[in-house]
Amino acid sequence: MTDTLDTLPTPCLILDRAILRRNVRRITERLKPADVQLRPHLKTAKSVEIGRMATAAFDGRITVSTLAEARYFAAGGFRDILYGVGIVPSKLPAVTAIRREGVNLRIVTDNLPVARAIADAAAAGDSFSVFIEIDSGAGRAGLPFPELPGLVDIGRVLHDAPNVELAGVMTHAGHSYHESTPAGIARVAEQERLAVVTAAETLRAAGLPCPIVSAGSTPTAMHARSFEGVTEMRPGVFVFNDLDQAGIGSCGAGDLALSVMASVIGHYPHRNQLLIDAGALALSKDISAQEFMPKAGYGFIKDAPVKDLAVVACSQEHGFVQADQPLPYDKLPIGSRVRIWPNHACITAAAYDRYHVVDSEESDGRTIVATYDRINGW
Amino acid sequence: MTDTLDTLPTPCLILDRAILRRNVRRITERLKPADVQLRPHLKTAKSVEIGRMATAAFDGRITVSTLAEARYFAAGGFRDILYGVGIVPSKLPAVTAIRREGVNLRIVTDNLPVARAIADAAAAGDSFSVFIEIDSGAGRAGLPFPELPGLVDIGRVLHDAPNVELAGVMTHAGHSYHESTPAGIARVAEQERLAVVTAAETLRAAGLPCPIVSAGSTPTAMHARSFEGVTEMRPGVFVFNDLDQAGIGSCGAGDLALSVMASVIGHYPHRNQLLIDAGALALSKDISAQEFMPKAGYGFIKDAPVKDLAVVACSQEHGFVQADQPLPYDKLPIGSRVRIWPNHACITAAAYDRYHVVDSEESDGRTIVATYDRINGW
Repeated sequence: MTDTLDTLPTPCLILDRAILRRNVRRITERLKPADVQLRPHLKTAKSVEIGRMATAAFDGRITVSTLAEARYFAAGGFRDILYGVGIVPSKLPAVTAIRREGVNLRIVTDNLPVARAIADAAAAGDSFSVFIEIDSGAGRAGLPFPELPGLVDIGRVLHDAPNVELAGVMTHAGHSYHESTPAGIARVAEQERLAVVTAAETLRAAGLPCPIVSAGSTPTAMHARSFEGVTEMRPGVFVFNDLDQAGIGSCGAGDLALSVMASVIGHYPHRNQLLIDAGALALSKDISAQEFMPKAGYGFIKDAPVKDLAVVACSQEHGFVQADQPLPYDKLPIGSRVRIWPNHACITAAAYDRYHVVDSEESDGRTIVATYDRINGW
Repeated sequence: MTDTLDTLPTPCLILDRAILRRNVRRITERLKPADVQLRPHLKTAKSVEIGRMATAAFDGRITVSTLAEARYFAAGGFRDILYGVGIVPSKLPAVTAIRREGVNLRIVTDNLPVARAIADAAAAGDSFSVFIEIDSGAGRAGLPFPELPGLVDIGRVLHDAPNVELAGVMTHAGHSYHESTPAGIARVAEQERLAVVTAAETLRAAGLPCPIVSAGSTPTAMHARSFEGVTEMRPGVFVFNDLDQAGIGSCGAGDLALSVMASVIGHYPHRNQLLIDAGALALSKDISAQEFMPKAGYGFIKDAPVKDLAVVACSQEHGFVQADQPLPYDKLPIGSRVRIWPNHACITAAAYDRYHVVDSEESDGRTIVATYDRINGW
């Protein structure tokens, strides 16, 4: 018997494929005319099926955030994979094992001793493809722009090492998540572009190669006014979108492809609340969206019978649902099902081993038309 | 070759079995003299091995928070399992499937329509064992004390149904987590005891059975001054403890059995930070401990070379580590390993499929002496 939204055990993760396809189409239409490749960050989707859909219009390059993802996507046929978290020497043998399968698993550093360790490992016979990471203002990893301290030294150590390809420079404008207008995001996008293009030019001026100039977050990919000098973008959450992205204006309210389905398990009229069977594990404790959407809690209820019905608190397997006005308990009886828009899709999805796929265009949006697996862990 | 803390891939979850055993011994020594059974809430550990250790001195009854846990522990030989999240009718067939394997999987409700649905399902031939949930002040699930609205009606529907056992009453004083002194926790523990014992007496006064009177959280199990009338306690996090428990005084600093091991992946002296490869997924975004330990961030670094070295921010796979004083980068070189005390162990552990077990008494505390699996998902 085919499952539907009425028969799946709760909590579970529901993906609307029609919205996913629209989201992919939108980013494709942004990047294609600018002749920029998409290297989607599949840390969000962690799914071979979704990776294939996201890259269908491009050359198949992808980004991952763990070696477990690298192995999984390699097994799924992807051949150009950037492992986007700063490498440490103890992980090089695992990188080599994947590269020996014919996969160009590329790595990242912003550190001279690590560059030397890569050169040493390469001298022993292993080959590597390495990006240098640039901090374009997010204050996370990378050589801070505009100083770019040590950039050329790191580039030279890598380029001079036998069996090492200096693949290029990469950055991630994570601070775009703290802007809430297209103009604000566009300003961050320009910082991101300027930082990574300047780094590339600095390497080239020193006689070093820099074939790939890689930037990107979902907000900057959506709102950048220029990609000049950038060769690829690495947005991740664009495939699903979430309340956080809606709050900052990266997407519209109809662009959220992912939801958690839960059952109503208790009515508490004396405190105007109800409980659902999706709590801290099913939704995550990420509250990013509250920055620009204070009532988002741990997620808004989709198609709710009252305004701003949200999960306002979570314990491990209980979600507390509340609104400003009296709850219409008759419309949300015990055992009825609700869908929650995730606050931050990347973190919420990580609790699940699969997507239950519906399609609101090709099907009725309630029948499960496919199941996609996911790779979690490290 | 035997793995050690120096060879495991990071991030990973490390469990010190010696501390776990001490934690189990401590709760055993609290409950045994009071003739109270331990029904540990295995939503924290989600491990058959740990479940066996926790119940070794008792009769083997346990609590779980998902049907996936119920199936897993049933397969592991446990025969008296309380599924502690309010049941909905659509889950009854899954409960029955487990019960038919010879497992007394007990369920919970606080709702008359659900009690009637259970009675209806039982009339069709399935048997059930049901607890009525009481809200002793936490404001989560349960009939609120002291009103206990509908308690006897629910009890009577269940007791009168063929094939249904009214197993008793249960409560969880989750508000004990917001006290930070033994006296404060003891006060909550007394509320918890009074609420559930009063509910039991109310049922008995109405001529209904109430064999099991179940209470418990780790703080109240540790600090209750009386268990009179309570027949079992259901603490969960006591097996591991965490910064949250240390902050409220449920345990001491030496009682934390669980840590996340991560690698230092970047140095950022211009902002007095370093990065590790454990972020929002490896640590969780739970910040419960900050209520009484404002500097805990997403976790303190164990055995740190400077005071209050903590993970102060997280993105998906990056943890930002900082302290009030200058970081001694020479003592934390790139590639070196740190262990992070989790803020809230139950939520952190849920990202991992296994525990790497060390033993700081029977072994050197660095050699992996065992691996325990975990059951995640639903």
